[in-house]
Amino acid sequence: MSRDGVKGREAAGDAPKVTITDIAREAGVSVPTVSRVVNGRSDVSPATRARVEDLLRRHGYQRRSAPGDRAALLDLVFNDLDSPWSVEIIRGVEDVAHAAGVGTVVSAIHDRAGSARQWMTNLRARATDGVILVTSALEPLMHEELRRLGVPLVVVDPAGAFALDAPTVGATNWAGGMAATEHLLGLGHTRIGFVAGPARLLCSRARLDGYRAALDGAGVPVDDTLIVQGDFYPESGFAGCNDLLALERPPTALFASSDQMALGAIEALRRRGLRVPEDMSVVGFDDLPEVRWSAPPLTTVRQPLSDMGKLAARTVLGLAQGIEPASARVELATELVVRSSTGPRG
Amino acid sequence: MSRDGVKGREAAGDAPKVTITDIAREAGVSVPTVSRVVNGRSDVSPATRARVEDLLRRHGYQRRSAPGDRAALLDLVFNDLDSPWSVEIIRGVEDVAHAAGVGTVVSAIHDRAGSARQWMTNLRARATDGVILVTSALEPLMHEELRRLGVPLVVVDPAGAFALDAPTVGATNWAGGMAATEHLLGLGHTRIGFVAGPARLLCSRARLDGYRAALDGAGVPVDDTLIVQGDFYPESGFAGCNDLLALERPPTALFASSDQMALGAIEALRRRGLRVPEDMSVVGFDDLPEVRWSAPPLTTVRQPLSDMGKLAARTVLGLAQGIEPASARVELATELVVRSSTGPRG
Repeated sequence: MSRDGVKGREAAGDAPKVTITDIAREAGVSVPTVSRVVNGRSDVSPATRARVEDLLRRHGYQRRSAPGDRAALLDLVFNDLDSPWSVEIIRGVEDVAHAAGVGTVVSAIHDRAGSARQWMTNLRARATDGVILVTSALEPLMHEELRRLGVPLVVVDPAGAFALDAPTVGATNWAGGMAATEHLLGLGHTRIGFVAGPARLLCSRARLDGYRAALDGAGVPVDDTLIVQGDFYPESGFAGCNDLLALERPPTALFASSDQMALGAIEALRRRGLRVPEDMSVVGFDDLPEVRWSAPPLTTVRQPLSDMGKLAARTVLGLAQGIEPASARVELATELVVRSSTGPRG
Repeated sequence: MSRDGVKGREAAGDAPKVTITDIAREAGVSVPTVSRVVNGRSDVSPATRARVEDLLRRHGYQRRSAPGDRAALLDLVFNDLDSPWSVEIIRGVEDVAHAAGVGTVVSAIHDRAGSARQWMTNLRARATDGVILVTSALEPLMHEELRRLGVPLVVVDPAGAFALDAPTVGATNWAGGMAATEHLLGLGHTRIGFVAGPARLLCSRARLDGYRAALDGAGVPVDDTLIVQGDFYPESGFAGCNDLLALERPPTALFASSDQMALGAIEALRRRGLRVPEDMSVVGFDDLPEVRWSAPPLTTVRQPLSDMGKLAARTVLGLAQGIEPASARVELATELVVRSSTGPRG
């Protein structure tokens, strides 16, 4: 490619079409070496760098980004990426960020201090514009560090007992727990089992309190033997359902405070040859895409996970521009979705 | 906080603990304004910038990143984030990237040209170190543009018919299709329905060919009326199963070339009061985490999605350092996982 040719196109206002392959050939170096020079890496010898820089300049090579012209990034941090739950939130955040020209950096810190420190190191290096934490037990020291760095922070569905000086986006867990229980009461059930989520999470507590409130409202005494402990994963729904079935007077309906526990409970019933909903009604919580196709399709409480992600992204991008959210704590509405796993008391 | 106090800590080798809140208070400006100065944004008045920069310098404020000290980023691009499938790949990529200090930017381009262009614009601005495309129909022009920019590219499970000048990471779809069909043949089934994935995807074709090869190997004639078209989503498995059940001689077993279609098929059977596996055996493909808890737990072909993500990340990070992969096309092994949805022919 002749320099005149390049100049001609530059004069016409077009971007010069010289590639780094052209540059590498002319400089007598490899393509990755040119790439390292372009990207400002240090692992190139000074002589090679000078030769490549000279050719880039002479050909008017258009760099992907000029120094100081850093693109916007947003960090979305999970404890784990082991649930279909997480992809719903990623989808919502990505949707808003993508449209704003902002990249969504997804990380998992696995509740490990070493991993969280590594993430914090990476975060400092990439100079993110904002952080969205999802139900994370990120250590208080990390919060302190984020605040010191002046990085805007929004928390989705804050779960722990720690007080955060950051806006939060959640769902109406209490109202959802109440709606699920009222649905079962309305079908004539009075012995309703409850499989709770981890006690350390506020959302678990809110769902349990909603369950109790609905029973109280209907004048049905709360029987603590019908409340079993789970951890949101299917195995604990399976075990919890078995425990309830072993009672002298088992419940006729079961409210699991996560869809995954509801699926575990349905499997426990199936193994005993019990039918859903004929022998036991089951309600979940979350409305993961997959439970529309569980056998039977699951009645559940829809958490607007994707919308929560969208709102968190809008809030943190606003904070990065100095716009404080109208409310520091927002709860989006949950909604009961009735499918085929619940029916009248037999 | 006194300047002497800060200096004292600096002398002791500690990072100065002045926060941008302190700086903002002293400068008489808002925290976001200080943050904008720290991040090198242009939307701050020169006078304010000078005052803030002066205070930052005097207090020895530790910036998150020095100019030119750009952190590494990797772009992971999906068509859509609407399947539990995607989170498995994100998990694998993030695991490798995180450990390497590299941020994983997740995007969805929704098969829309406008969205792909927006992504390309964002990509240029953030100067990513590498791109991993997942079964994407990203236009040939976009590939060309990536090549021109010298951005290393790796494709996970290339699906379309386009020829890409990039390393690819896939799974042994043909062998998986064959293993699933052989499993059903081994249980005595000879009329085995097949719900195919989208015809335009190579992985669909490979699974179908594996199904045919297993039948041929067992001397069972391929009956084309037993092959129905799906699109990988549950609805198409539901419809496909209904079509097969409407045949004069329905199959006794069904192989769906995605887990989601298998779940749709099981729902079609459930609605007719048919039992799995007593009345029909069902095999899926993918081994999504959720099918361990479907009713019944699904026999399926495991695709090592997370491992494919890990390998793609290692390959693209290698390319960014000029290391060519040993092989341009790698297929990781699939594996038949036998659970409760398959049984002997009745």
